[in-house]
Amino acid sequence: MIEPAVYVILDRDAARGRDLEAILAAAIAGGARLIQLREKEWPSGTLLPLAARLRRRCRDAGVTFIVNDRVDLALACEADGVHLGQDDLPAAVARPLLRPGMILGRSTHSVEQALAAQAEGADYVAVGSMFPTSTKPDFQLVGPDLVRRVRPHVRVPLVGIGGITAANAGAVAAAGADGVAVISAVCGAPDPAAAVRELLAAVRAGRGTLTTPDPSL
Amino acid sequence: MIEPAVYVILDRDAARGRDLEAILAAAIAGGARLIQLREKEWPSGTLLPLAARLRRRCRDAGVTFIVNDRVDLALACEADGVHLGQDDLPAAVARPLLRPGMILGRSTHSVEQALAAQAEGADYVAVGSMFPTSTKPDFQLVGPDLVRRVRPHVRVPLVGIGGITAANAGAVAAAGADGVAVISAVCGAPDPAAAVRELLAAVRAGRGTLTTPDPSL
Repeated sequence: MIEPAVYVILDRDAARGRDLEAILAAAIAGGARLIQLREKEWPSGTLLPLAARLRRRCRDAGVTFIVNDRVDLALACEADGVHLGQDDLPAAVARPLLRPGMILGRSTHSVEQALAAQAEGADYVAVGSMFPTSTKPDFQLVGPDLVRRVRPHVRVPLVGIGGITAANAGAVAAAGADGVAVISAVCGAPDPAAAVRELLAAVRAGRGTLTTPDPSL
Repeated sequence: MIEPAVYVILDRDAARGRDLEAILAAAIAGGARLIQLREKEWPSGTLLPLAARLRRRCRDAGVTFIVNDRVDLALACEADGVHLGQDDLPAAVARPLLRPGMILGRSTHSVEQALAAQAEGADYVAVGSMFPTSTKPDFQLVGPDLVRRVRPHVRVPLVGIGGITAANAGAVAAAGADGVAVISAVCGAPDPAAAVRELLAAVRAGRGTLTTPDPSL
């Protein structure tokens, strides 16, 4: 069972030279219970020792650790799961490679993709981009409205992603998301622990204003 | 059992826009019995359909198909094996992820690395660079002399790699290599089938001049 209220994605670019392990420690101290390592450039042999260190720290804290894209690296470092974008391996191809019980998450950008992800057995679905973002500038901006439209049809945990900050996280939760996935808002924050705390508070406040969506809409 | 006399590495950059599947068909027609797909840029979801097509064509021809670096992709397309560079996952990490009987190949650039690869259970070892190459300009130039020095200590098949053409392949075989791994010499050739035939002839001629290395050296 994942706790996706604040899903912190560790990204070396967004960290701008700061140590990802230190950011992870701060994120956990701030209350994050779901972590992803996202690194598209490093060769796997370089990435593995970092992934193994982050994985160990998550395990010690009882926090879920997910690896982006690389199923082999997720297996190699004994991550809890893998997160697959629409350009990565299809869920139906990746699932048989995973160990039993491993989590498979999926990025989606439309109601159709979210429904397909659930049908393919995704354990959670990320929906984005919620807001304009520099991390993935080519991603379609769908806004919290897509969360609102996806929510009635998706039983698995659903997180918004893309350009989320403490200032707008509440709107994502109010639209029906179980949490927010963030990169820059934590990796680029002067105080990552405080950033997670503020995001958590915003998500909780947003949930309080959640109106049950009408599945017929 | 691999047949490494001419090991053709399919590389989109080296093919300069030409269809890799057509190059593969020509390479097989020319006599190649060992193929690798090497693609560092494409996301795995884009690469998988190509890998599956190449894999099918190799299977139909009874030719061995290896995927570079990505263990997950190799598993996903049911490749015969995976090739790991020094920057990729260590062999000891990758091996438990492979299905039984899958081939694990390793790039090496020194006697020490070749011995380590064999000790880690590599099924074949590539040694390079044999000659200056534009594909991996940062690779250390070791020359056929490294083949000569590695050969007495390595029981598994050994191929030279890096800058090999029909004009110099004989020297690599004469130094003790079981074959030559080539990228540009086939992917960039006007007639890839003819290029493979010429390389095969050069390797066979080079083997004829092979002097048994002295293990005490």
